[in-house]
Amino acid sequence: MKRINAGLIGFGNVGSGIIKILRDRKALLSEKTGLEISIKKVCDQDIVSKRNVSLDKAMLTRDARALINDPQIDILIELIGGIHPAKEFIIEALRKGKHVVTANKALLALHGQELFTEAADRGKSIYFEASVGAGIPIIKSLREGLVANRFNGILGIVNGTSNYILSSMSKNNCSFQEALKAARIKGFAEKDPTLDIEGMDSAHKLILLTYLAFGRFVELKDVFIEGISRISLADVNYAKEMGFEIKLLAIAKKEGSDLEIRVHPTLIPQDHLLSSVDGVFNAIYVSSDLAGNLLFYGPGAGQLSAASAVVSDLVDLTQDIKAGFFRPTLKIVADKTVKKIRKIDDFESRYYIRFMARDLSGVLARISGVLAKFGISIASVTQKERSKTQLVPIVMLIHEAREKNMREALSIIDRLEAIKEKSVAIRMEEA
Amino acid sequence: MKRINAGLIGFGNVGSGIIKILRDRKALLSEKTGLEISIKKVCDQDIVSKRNVSLDKAMLTRDARALINDPQIDILIELIGGIHPAKEFIIEALRKGKHVVTANKALLALHGQELFTEAADRGKSIYFEASVGAGIPIIKSLREGLVANRFNGILGIVNGTSNYILSSMSKNNCSFQEALKAARIKGFAEKDPTLDIEGMDSAHKLILLTYLAFGRFVELKDVFIEGISRISLADVNYAKEMGFEIKLLAIAKKEGSDLEIRVHPTLIPQDHLLSSVDGVFNAIYVSSDLAGNLLFYGPGAGQLSAASAVVSDLVDLTQDIKAGFFRPTLKIVADKTVKKIRKIDDFESRYYIRFMARDLSGVLARISGVLAKFGISIASVTQKERSKTQLVPIVMLIHEAREKNMREALSIIDRLEAIKEKSVAIRMEEA
Repeated sequence: MKRINAGLIGFGNVGSGIIKILRDRKALLSEKTGLEISIKKVCDQDIVSKRNVSLDKAMLTRDARALINDPQIDILIELIGGIHPAKEFIIEALRKGKHVVTANKALLALHGQELFTEAADRGKSIYFEASVGAGIPIIKSLREGLVANRFNGILGIVNGTSNYILSSMSKNNCSFQEALKAARIKGFAEKDPTLDIEGMDSAHKLILLTYLAFGRFVELKDVFIEGISRISLADVNYAKEMGFEIKLLAIAKKEGSDLEIRVHPTLIPQDHLLSSVDGVFNAIYVSSDLAGNLLFYGPGAGQLSAASAVVSDLVDLTQDIKAGFFRPTLKIVADKTVKKIRKIDDFESRYYIRFMARDLSGVLARISGVLAKFGISIASVTQKERSKTQLVPIVMLIHEAREKNMREALSIIDRLEAIKEKSVAIRMEEA
Repeated sequence: MKRINAGLIGFGNVGSGIIKILRDRKALLSEKTGLEISIKKVCDQDIVSKRNVSLDKAMLTRDARALINDPQIDILIELIGGIHPAKEFIIEALRKGKHVVTANKALLALHGQELFTEAADRGKSIYFEASVGAGIPIIKSLREGLVANRFNGILGIVNGTSNYILSSMSKNNCSFQEALKAARIKGFAEKDPTLDIEGMDSAHKLILLTYLAFGRFVELKDVFIEGISRISLADVNYAKEMGFEIKLLAIAKKEGSDLEIRVHPTLIPQDHLLSSVDGVFNAIYVSSDLAGNLLFYGPGAGQLSAASAVVSDLVDLTQDIKAGFFRPTLKIVADKTVKKIRKIDDFESRYYIRFMARDLSGVLARISGVLAKFGISIASVTQKERSKTQLVPIVMLIHEAREKNMREALSIIDRLEAIKEKSVAIRMEEA
């Protein structure tokens, strides 16, 4: 039986998971592929520490070139993360005639265009199923299962840490800080959780989803990113009272011939499936023109879950290698109906707004006056109970409004004498 | 550019959708596949009626053999449904060296073993993505995306008609008959809805999902099937008060080394994602050992949705044809940890039970006595308000109990003097 050899760079959690799966499911995978998939060499800075799989010492190396230059290795699996030297390793491997499997969303989001072009020029493929939603086969579904579709939009809960925090706040009535602490204790948040809670990780994944759905690599600077660290328990609860949950959404949406690309906390109605996605789970809601509105849901992280995705990539690659050609559906075609990426100022959205006002008669009139001046129309107003601090929360839901108008209106309102705190504005999605 | 020719048997709703997609997305699909996919001939009994796509008359025929015997046709698309002559057409096409794409779940459920064997013997493939969940790429996901996984269970809402009826009853507080009538008016139920509401359509799809997840073709006689026609509004409402929705579930579940295969109305907790699947939507909840618990959700029917799935099969096949081999992941491997299909008597499940009793003191004691004799343990009891008919509904939730015991206990209870109607028993799932 023909053997396909892979080399693994990054012998961490997911890496050991892959070795374990290829070992435990060897017979199953051979029967399904008609080939033997084998890890020939493993590279890591640390080749001493014990992992939960044992490995022949001769397979271990600290030198990535020992893999990259090994002509018997057909596939490089890159799991070290970060930009450098992951990027260089991948480029060198492609140049040496290897295919690549990676879970490195940051690298692909920032340098995907260059890397995919390099791969195509060399007649090789880069597979990356594990980079979004771990074991959820979202990339394969967008690329192959929905191959004939055009997409209207994608709404994704793609960061487990943020979703864990927001659903804890909602379910356990606790503050952001308490929820973050709980996430840390459970191992769902890193020591420095900035990338997760400030939306950067979601933005990286969104760039990949946008590439798959709309056929273009958006630059990070064109992605509007707002994290969840300023979401207060009060807003979570007010939203809930009105029938909404707050989720960190990664959104790529066609508006006419524009594309809006944004990551931000979002109020979604409680009867939308995305609002029921709790804890560290991920879900991607896909609006397609033929297959309709679809949801793909599952654990967004985890050793075996991510490894499951990498192994499915390996299996696909064994067949590409056997056939000697690219998988066609790897070819991403630009949606030509998309003319430009919309600037943040031109976004249109519904809004949840909370003002903290001194209980002065007339403050509502003044606020509505400013909003009206900017053509912003109010859908509902609730004046909440007076708090101990003498400030009264006024919560408004706003009809579709232009981002720029909203921002200017709020900056004027925030300077009103009756307004005592910076107002809170959270976008809403109903789709 | 090389052209792949397909022949289409069945020029109905989905058939015209396919022609429309292949036409409208011609450039897109050529760019993605590197090939041209073309429908060369279309066969239907009715070649006169207008469809919503126009077709050169020379392409139309009443004679299926005109397609099957055409050596220039590489792929047969079978969309006539039913067992005969669909089965014969498929077998003949395979023998003539054609690949097959079909949406015919009934045929595959009943004769899949024979058809897949015939295909394998001829070195050809049968693709069937449209047969379960229309455009939801569930078959590709189970077969390719989750290629390395073993499965613990699948819970599916796979019949849109039944789900529309059950969610109407729950949301609009209407009877089964009223909901069915509404479904008919909206075109969501056929004139004779028996196959849908009595669970047979779900059973067919379940056999296919079981094949994909556990690698074996279960015979229809081994599938326990109970439909929704006896579900009363009272039970929908009592269930809701206790935090459950009633859904028609198709279940394939491993219990030790047994496999349970069943279709029946089921109480599921309101916080389970499946309980939020409303209307004609479908959803398949997959419990896998590596990728964890996943949900695939989307429209379960519709012209373009089903056609989207057929076109994705066509695209996959173009590459099989180009490469000249089977797609490996088409090879379904039996899960050897499954030893047998469990008999219905041995099923274990939690139950919702409703008795209609005369308000006699002592009736509860008698019921609990019978249940206790069969080792059936009660989780909760609610005695509902006395109705106008003098009968009191007693609703019980039952801990895990063996089907056989439950059935015997109920037949004894139903003969008690105080019990005035046949008791209602609905299974529960929490997974």
